[in-house]
Amino acid sequence: MIAQRLVGKQVGRGAFGIAREVKATEKKFGKDSVINSTLGTFFCEDEKLGVLELVDKTYRELESPDTFGYAAGVSGSAEYKEAVKKSIFGTHCKEILENAFVDVASTPGGTGAIYTAFKGYGNDGNTVLLPEYMWDAYVHITGANRLNNTIYKLFDGEKFNTKDFSEKMLEVVKRDGRVLAVINDPCQNPTGYSLSFEEWKEVVEILREASKYGEVILINDIAYIDYDFRGRDNAREYMKLFLGLPENVLILFAYSMSKSFTSYGLRTGAIVALSSSKKVIDEFTVVAEYLCRSSWSNVSRGGMALLVKAYENENIINGINSERDKWVETLKKRAEIFERKSEEVGLKYCPFSSGFFLTIPLEENKDEIVNDLKEKKVFVLPIKKGIRIAICSISCKKLEILPKLIKESIDKFNK
Amino acid sequence: MIAQRLVGKQVGRGAFGIAREVKATEKKFGKDSVINSTLGTFFCEDEKLGVLELVDKTYRELESPDTFGYAAGVSGSAEYKEAVKKSIFGTHCKEILENAFVDVASTPGGTGAIYTAFKGYGNDGNTVLLPEYMWDAYVHITGANRLNNTIYKLFDGEKFNTKDFSEKMLEVVKRDGRVLAVINDPCQNPTGYSLSFEEWKEVVEILREASKYGEVILINDIAYIDYDFRGRDNAREYMKLFLGLPENVLILFAYSMSKSFTSYGLRTGAIVALSSSKKVIDEFTVVAEYLCRSSWSNVSRGGMALLVKAYENENIINGINSERDKWVETLKKRAEIFERKSEEVGLKYCPFSSGFFLTIPLEENKDEIVNDLKEKKVFVLPIKKGIRIAICSISCKKLEILPKLIKESIDKFNK
Repeated sequence: MIAQRLVGKQVGRGAFGIAREVKATEKKFGKDSVINSTLGTFFCEDEKLGVLELVDKTYRELESPDTFGYAAGVSGSAEYKEAVKKSIFGTHCKEILENAFVDVASTPGGTGAIYTAFKGYGNDGNTVLLPEYMWDAYVHITGANRLNNTIYKLFDGEKFNTKDFSEKMLEVVKRDGRVLAVINDPCQNPTGYSLSFEEWKEVVEILREASKYGEVILINDIAYIDYDFRGRDNAREYMKLFLGLPENVLILFAYSMSKSFTSYGLRTGAIVALSSSKKVIDEFTVVAEYLCRSSWSNVSRGGMALLVKAYENENIINGINSERDKWVETLKKRAEIFERKSEEVGLKYCPFSSGFFLTIPLEENKDEIVNDLKEKKVFVLPIKKGIRIAICSISCKKLEILPKLIKESIDKFNK
Repeated sequence: MIAQRLVGKQVGRGAFGIAREVKATEKKFGKDSVINSTLGTFFCEDEKLGVLELVDKTYRELESPDTFGYAAGVSGSAEYKEAVKKSIFGTHCKEILENAFVDVASTPGGTGAIYTAFKGYGNDGNTVLLPEYMWDAYVHITGANRLNNTIYKLFDGEKFNTKDFSEKMLEVVKRDGRVLAVINDPCQNPTGYSLSFEEWKEVVEILREASKYGEVILINDIAYIDYDFRGRDNAREYMKLFLGLPENVLILFAYSMSKSFTSYGLRTGAIVALSSSKKVIDEFTVVAEYLCRSSWSNVSRGGMALLVKAYENENIINGINSERDKWVETLKKRAEIFERKSEEVGLKYCPFSSGFFLTIPLEENKDEIVNDLKEKKVFVLPIKKGIRIAICSISCKKLEILPKLIKESIDKFNK
């Protein structure tokens, strides 16, 4: 009875699906004997969900109408939009706002931003370039919106594969007169790779080149930006490269409070458009509001009020940043352990810079290996072409032994 | 640069847009001298946003992971789905669940439910029947999803126009082999009309008849159900009529916590499917999850946890219901005043039963009349074919004088 074009479409089990299995095992054998690498949220060393204390406090102190009332405006309040700009651009905010046209629309998390980008800027049959290792929701959102996708190779040795990205982008834009591309950076999910400033320079040159043949829409998913090991400022430096681009290049940031403000459950994010053209941004303002209203109407008022309060008071935002920085130190430690132990046992992983995840490239016998790990009470998330290691949710202690367990399971099947 | 099919689409100013104008006037002249009939939320007699105290308390008492963590499951936790069923079906829950297949998927408010219904069950170019007086988001959601709409007349004298509904439904289903129809009931937005049990019987007969020619999808938007002046039980009695329908009739309830639990800003609702066919419901489960994941990913964990807590403890849900019942008494009083005063001055309004709104039918010189009212510091929401009176947000005192002010403005232009 469902619409014809949706027949056969479905979500895989993914992290949400495996969660139940993990819980059952934890209940039976105790949490200490289970390694759960399926989650995408930060857990402290005590294996409790990390909720930033100042975020929690600020949210709880909101007055009731700020939590329960409707938001002021379909696409978010003016104050929220200003706070999002500060959160995205950081110390580069002034320079960017003075040299580009920018507008913001609130969305339910990063997913809502990707949805708005694809639905708002993809004509039927257009192609979105997606990275070979990726968050699977991108594929679902293209599929639900009559878009095709083409996969670009992420790596050339230890570096970003600018050559493949360039070839694919030019091929598509020459054919279709329009190309959409997703770069999930910094701290790519699931590899943890971050492009260097130099690599971003090359990417921006590719956008320029592609714009000679048609419209270029770059979707930059920055969900993990505040966990970049290089620090908040360095993580944002590449954004200046988006200034002064041709008018037919549009940059769309997919912004989310989920990770940066541990507000996963509040479903608060934004799509932020940056362009050299006022006309392009005016058009964005109208279409983003239309897509809000015709999908979810408006976004969590409390989530938005939280961000506004945080940026209204320097003590709050600085306090939140300091708290989070401590977790970044924890992530560095966890990454160091995982990398060291992997090298000890000869376990290969994709180039990694920082963030919540690493990826073990793996195609052959993946299901068997994942199941074998389950026997050892190790739950990893199988992704296309690999398995994802969630250092965000595994304690240092468990990471000491994880690489060996994985290597043994791989060796058992792939000799 | 936007997608071709979205060119020219935009949201009207609506309630969100006028809000700023109202605030400016209130600031200048004081709240007492302004009548604001543009809102869709309940305000107490002191003109403060009504937040149910037990809702507020229960939400604030949630543990942090229950607010900030991700929900368990893309389409909501099992516990939430059970709570939604209780909330929708009330005392008829057991009977309905024993005699039909039912499943639930969480959505951001009622809008998300309508989106899922239209996108999930409308093929390109299909037609959705919409009521002549209606919430304008329906039109946007058809427009954003390549669906047409056909308007059915709401009234025949003081009664629901079953004849027109029947004719339109049969015409569409005979032509297309499929028809979608929205009935926003009880407490229709914007007229406040509620179908009687007898009228629902007739509607269900029409669905049966239409199902001889194709697939029939009825979307029953029940956002205001808990404000029905007949009481919670009576308001839900018609739902039993949905049992035992042919397998190609699908009932989709658009459920929202916004009004019933004064949780507008939490963006928590659900789409609930009811069918005689297990296959139809199994298909719903898959497609609803797919549409969640490819639009907003998942829904406010705190909002869902709130409903679960409320239904886990009889004292909480009974307490919330009692609190709300007092507001229903307030609404009755307000309606009585508005109706009495309207009759005194000869102001006509659409058939009204209960809820948040009444509607003054008005087409000629509507803009002039709305602007003239603004001069008197009266802000009403212009809708298609009328103006909406929000008794949910206007105090008794102000309602005493409102009908006269409106009548005078109408008479000034329409002689």
